[in-house]
Formats: sequence, structure tokens, C-alpha cells
Amino acid sequence: MEFIKGHGTGNDFVILPDPDGALDLTPDLVATICDRRRGIGGDGVLRVVRAAKHPDGAALAGEAEWFMDYWNSDGSFAEMCGNGSRVFVRYLLDTGLAAPTAGVLPVATRAGLVRARVDGDAIAVEMRRPRLYATSAATLGGLTLPGTAVDVGNPHLVCPLPSGLDLAGLDLTRAPGFDPALFASGVNVEFTVPGGPIDGVDAHVRMRVYERGSAETLSCGTGACAVAAVALHDAGRETGTVVVDVPGGRLIVTVTDNFCWLSGPALLIATGTLTLPAP
Amino acid sequence: MEFIKGHGTGNDFVILPDPDGALDLTPDLVATICDRRRGIGGDGVLRVVRAAKHPDGAALAGEAEWFMDYWNSDGSFAEMCGNGSRVFVRYLLDTGLAAPTAGVLPVATRAGLVRARVDGDAIAVEMRRPRLYATSAATLGGLTLPGTAVDVGNPHLVCPLPSGLDLAGLDLTRAPGFDPALFASGVNVEFTVPGGPIDGVDAHVRMRVYERGSAETLSCGTGACAVAAVALHDAGRETGTVVVDVPGGRLIVTVTDNFCWLSGPALLIATGTLTLPAP
Repeated sequence: MEFIKGHGTGNDFVILPDPDGALDLTPDLVATICDRRRGIGGDGVLRVVRAAKHPDGAALAGEAEWFMDYWNSDGSFAEMCGNGSRVFVRYLLDTGLAAPTAGVLPVATRAGLVRARVDGDAIAVEMRRPRLYATSAATLGGLTLPGTAVDVGNPHLVCPLPSGLDLAGLDLTRAPGFDPALFASGVNVEFTVPGGPIDGVDAHVRMRVYERGSAETLSCGTGACAVAAVALHDAGRETGTVVVDVPGGRLIVTVTDNFCWLSGPALLIATGTLTLPAP
Repeated sequence: MEFIKGHGTGNDFVILPDPDGALDLTPDLVATICDRRRGIGGDGVLRVVRAAKHPDGAALAGEAEWFMDYWNSDGSFAEMCGNGSRVFVRYLLDTGLAAPTAGVLPVATRAGLVRARVDGDAIAVEMRRPRLYATSAATLGGLTLPGTAVDVGNPHLVCPLPSGLDLAGLDLTRAPGFDPALFASGVNVEFTVPGGPIDGVDAHVRMRVYERGSAETLSCGTGACAVAAVALHDAGRETGTVVVDVPGGRLIVTVTDNFCWLSGPALLIATGTLTLPAP
């Protein structure tokens, strides 16, 4: 089985080229491929299928040539993944399988059509506009940290740290506590501190994130969007551009009246052949 | 750069074929290759160099054709790695670069000559004979667990759990405590429970291991040897065969008067080309 490995700000994926949708991908196979010691290792699998050739992509085949068949590392489906779609687009561009038209490359996903564009060395994708909807708090190691609940298609709780406390001082080896009445299906928790001023942007924030059902990760695309929306709100703005430094690198989030662009590096680092033993 | 990925009971390695020693391998490059999100990911790198072509292998070139240039994932050197050498030998055999003579394939390492043999589907390598040398104790989550200090070239502390406590109940997200006077350079701590009886072997033990300077791992070759030696000692024996179940699979340790054979599965799962970005 041919594979490519790539990552976006440390969110890493195994890309499986399968233009005709011939690959018999199963949850077990995905989990084996993503196993970091017995397989290639990755946060998820990005199967590259022609939209017309995948049942979930066929309806969008008139608008996008390629369908991103995204699987989580545990073999479950996810509708969309911000960093994953940036790596997916990097693959399409680098292999020449697709090219932007008028600057935009549309990709079919389970969450509908996602627009991407090349942004210098970076790849930007259009995300859902974050919506702030409640105040709440996270608990961590005896601290109670007030925060803002944000919906980016999935739930987030953005907690600015009080002055005097730095990101490096947080122990995120354990999951933060949250209000289960507000977040019945769990929540991704972002901890933020202000970054230094950067010319030409409206805000600069540094963050760490604990992803629900998972652990601390190096990057979270929707989390960066949530954090950017809170930073803009705190600056009295509805739209603008925010630099968000995640542990895995730098993302730039641009919130417009209707959308939210997530931009950042996306790299392919290896290509090869997988020869997993028979199960 | 060509690479192969393989593992032995979940201890995984990036193999770099470099017969003529032409590769300019640096600690930074090794750390990048072993990075699980930005690189291929692995517990270490196994560079495959002709013994005659490597300064540390040349003295053994008359006895072994190939030198295992083993690097830890952080870019430091290690003299020897039990599971790594089993994967290294699997690569030599599968590619036809070497074959056993009279059942034995010698490999040059920084710890000297290591003999390997094919053991059915498994690969066995000769390890140093474990030496029990002190009693001590580990502490873990309020428990004090007496154990035996064992030297296998590196230090181990083997702690059988009291009856009523199972391996699954241990929290190894934190390092166990140990006596710093006895283990000035740290220690690998193994926790063990008896396994069920198995025909034809002298003991059967299940274990989990916390490796010094690291974390809990799926497998530890020298740890399995240490555990086997303690199991034999507890059975009133100096030599014998012990089945050791580690979280990553099953190892079989055979202790003789002079040596200790470590046997278990070793698999190659992928081959490819690494295209890391310029640093």
C-alpha cells in the first residue's frame, strides 16, 4: 500500500492515494496504520479519492474533483479536520493532482465543500466562523480558570491564564475539568497567554490545547480558530487577523463576516510502501 | 534518504541503509527522523553500515560483516539495544545482505560482537547474562514495592507486585521513586506478576516497565532479561527458559551458564524515502 506522511504544525497524517476508491479501508486497518510503534503513526488517515468515486463525495463531484476521506487514528470518522485538510491540499498541489482556479481549490469533505488557497509557503483553508456562546471555567491542578465557550463545529473552552502564570507551568498530563452540563459531549480546552505585538495583525496569542477524548496535542486547527475569535472579541472586534502560536508552530487565523481562514505550514516528509503483516 | 521502519514487540526503529558509511548522520537529524509527528517516528535509528566502513566497527570487521550504528531517538548514542538488534538482524535477513553461518549471524555493535539466530518466526540475540546484586524498593503512588537490583549492562529494579494488585492497576504516567544512593544514574523499573503455567518453560511472568529518563514503554529487551533472571532465582534456578509478556508482545528469555538469549518477533512494516525539509 502506497503512503505519504505529512504534517501541519505537528498534526500528522498518513495520506493514502486511492483515486478510484478501491482500497478496502477498515477501522482496524486505520488504527494499525496510525499506531505509532507498529504502524506508520499519525493523528489520522487522509484517503485521497475522486469525489465521484466515493459515496460521501459524489454529491459534490461537480464542484470538487477530490474527496478527503478523513479517519481519526482510532478508526472512527471525523467530518472535517483543519490541519488535515491543509496537508491534504499540500499533497494535491505537490503531486499535480489539482491546482487552484482563480486562487481557490475546492475539496469535498464530509462537512461539505472546503475552499483552500495557497498563502505563500502556507496552505489556508476555510473553516466555520467561530461562535462565542457562553462563559464557563476549566479546572486544572487546583486552579479554576474562567473561560469562554466557543462553537467551531466542535466545542471549545478558551481560558486565558491570569497574569503571572505561564503556559510552560501548566501540567496537561491530566485532562482539565469542565462543566458537564454545558459540555455534555466533552470539550477541547485551550489555555492562552498574550503574545508580543506583531505588525499588521490585530492580535497575537500563544496557546496550549487539551483535546477531548485524547490528550495534549501540538496543534488544533479549530482550537486556533476559537482562540482567535476570543482574542478579537476581547479587542472589541468582530473580524480581523490573529497570529496563534501553538506548540507545533504558528497558525494565522483570519475571521471575516462569514468565514474563518486557517493558514499555516503543511509539509510532506516521506513517501513509501506499507507492508503490514496479515492481521 | 531511503528508510525502512520495523519493530520488535512494539519497540520501533527507523533503519537507514548506508553500506559505505556515506551518510552524514547527526544528533539533530536523528532526532528529526525519530520525531513521531514531524518525522518518521521511532525509539531509535539503526544505521546499517559495513563494519569495515565504520570507525567503531572496523576492529570487528573480521568477525562480522555489518555494524549496527544504533542511536537513541534523542540523538545520543547507545552501545546496544536488544530489541533493536533483533530488528536489525531481521532487515539483514529479509534483504539478503547476510545469512547465518552454522545457525549464527554475528553483528558488530559498540558493545562488541552480538550473536543472533533465527528462532522459527522470531529472531534471538545474545545478551549479557543478568547479575542480581542487591535488594531495594520502588515507590509508586504511595506504595512501597520491594525489588531486586539487576545489572544487564544497564541497571534494573525488578519489583513483583503483592498478590491482589494487578499490572493494569498501576499508574505509570509518573516515574516510580527509587533509592538514588544505589542507582546514582537512574534505573529501569520493572513491575511483574506471575503468568499462567506454560508447558516446557521454567517460568512465565507478565511485566510493565518504566525506562529511566523516558517513560513507560511497550517493551524493554534488557528489562525482560532482568525479569527472567529474577523469576529463575525465585524458582531456585540459575539457568532456564522464561516467557516474559511485555505490553508489546511476548519475549522468550533463555539464561545459560554464560549468556542470555532474548527471542521474539521482529517485523519490517514499511519502506520508503524520507524527504525532510531543510533545517
